[in-house]
Amino acid sequence: MRRGIFVSIEGIDGSGKTTLREELIAYFEMKTEVVGIREPGGTEVSEKIRGLLLDISNHSMVPRTEALLYAAARSQVVEELIEPALADGKMVIADRYLDSTIAYQGYGRGLDLQFLEQLNILCTGGLLPDLTLLLDLDPGLARSRVSFRKMDRMEGEGLFFQERVRRGYLDLFARQPERIRLLDASMSREVLFEQAIAMISEMV
Amino acid sequence: MRRGIFVSIEGIDGSGKTTLREELIAYFEMKTEVVGIREPGGTEVSEKIRGLLLDISNHSMVPRTEALLYAAARSQVVEELIEPALADGKMVIADRYLDSTIAYQGYGRGLDLQFLEQLNILCTGGLLPDLTLLLDLDPGLARSRVSFRKMDRMEGEGLFFQERVRRGYLDLFARQPERIRLLDASMSREVLFEQAIAMISEMV
Repeated sequence: MRRGIFVSIEGIDGSGKTTLREELIAYFEMKTEVVGIREPGGTEVSEKIRGLLLDISNHSMVPRTEALLYAAARSQVVEELIEPALADGKMVIADRYLDSTIAYQGYGRGLDLQFLEQLNILCTGGLLPDLTLLLDLDPGLARSRVSFRKMDRMEGEGLFFQERVRRGYLDLFARQPERIRLLDASMSREVLFEQAIAMISEMV
Repeated sequence: MRRGIFVSIEGIDGSGKTTLREELIAYFEMKTEVVGIREPGGTEVSEKIRGLLLDISNHSMVPRTEALLYAAARSQVVEELIEPALADGKMVIADRYLDSTIAYQGYGRGLDLQFLEQLNILCTGGLLPDLTLLLDLDPGLARSRVSFRKMDRMEGEGLFFQERVRRGYLDLFARQPERIRLLDASMSREVLFEQAIAMISEMV
């Protein structure tokens, strides 16, 4: 059995990850078996961790704890969903994966990057995506797409925070251009979708 | 301001940690300010993580996730409670700390010890107790002390599991005899208490 392909979608809040993920899943489901992952949830255990992370009442959570909770959720998703799916030859499309930890907890919250890189290796056993689609967008534009009523604890952090996160993603792209592909998320949905399809199809 | 003293109490389930901790807190509170810690809880955030960890319905939790959740709870307790208390010159008495991770997740569940040691350093920033009281007890004897009705997810693991955990604690003791002091937990409560007082008083 040929191992499946693992694609992650990254970008700041409001960059269009969820829409793109849903469109890609609908498209590739016509060709192969696809497993959609929405970090930090997706399993019973990781959904409970996700609830804790996004609960706006947990304002006393320190950054290191936040990073460890994301790592805990990811470790569950990797072992319970991603690894078995890839071993079965299925395609995995994940909304966020380990680059989010570097961008949000590292560049966003200022946690030590070396600590986070070690944590990423610990919680994934070293599993990297075959391809990462990075949706790059100006945080002001992204903000206008996110409804203020629905903002969770992460999204409520403000524009400066999102700007630091964007900078983190761009640094990751600069260091790993073979794995990470940059997409200009200000383009129309249709164009983004076409570009993403083309990038993934190169891998298959 | 002189930095406070940090004491942890370790041992398998049913070895008498909770009783000893309560007696020590009552005793030392007459002399100094004492902060009692019950891992993995103690703060609003870590109590929620504790709830997740001990919920018997989370049977699908993989060992790596369990270890990361304990680390997340500990990191919150270290930053929010332990470090500030020690900086204020208070005594900290903790029911479980990082040796539990090595004994339970390492020896008990078979997770890689190097992974766990790295995780312990990451989540505590390297903060070790000044003194660790290890309550050593035969798991069969300990079992007879734990009410079966009240068993949580960890305690329900059975005797072989507790035996591996005990072995883990004894290996830790063998490697760090300056920090860890062994107490025979089959002795009477009164004798255990006297010995513990004597060991802690050496440090003050």
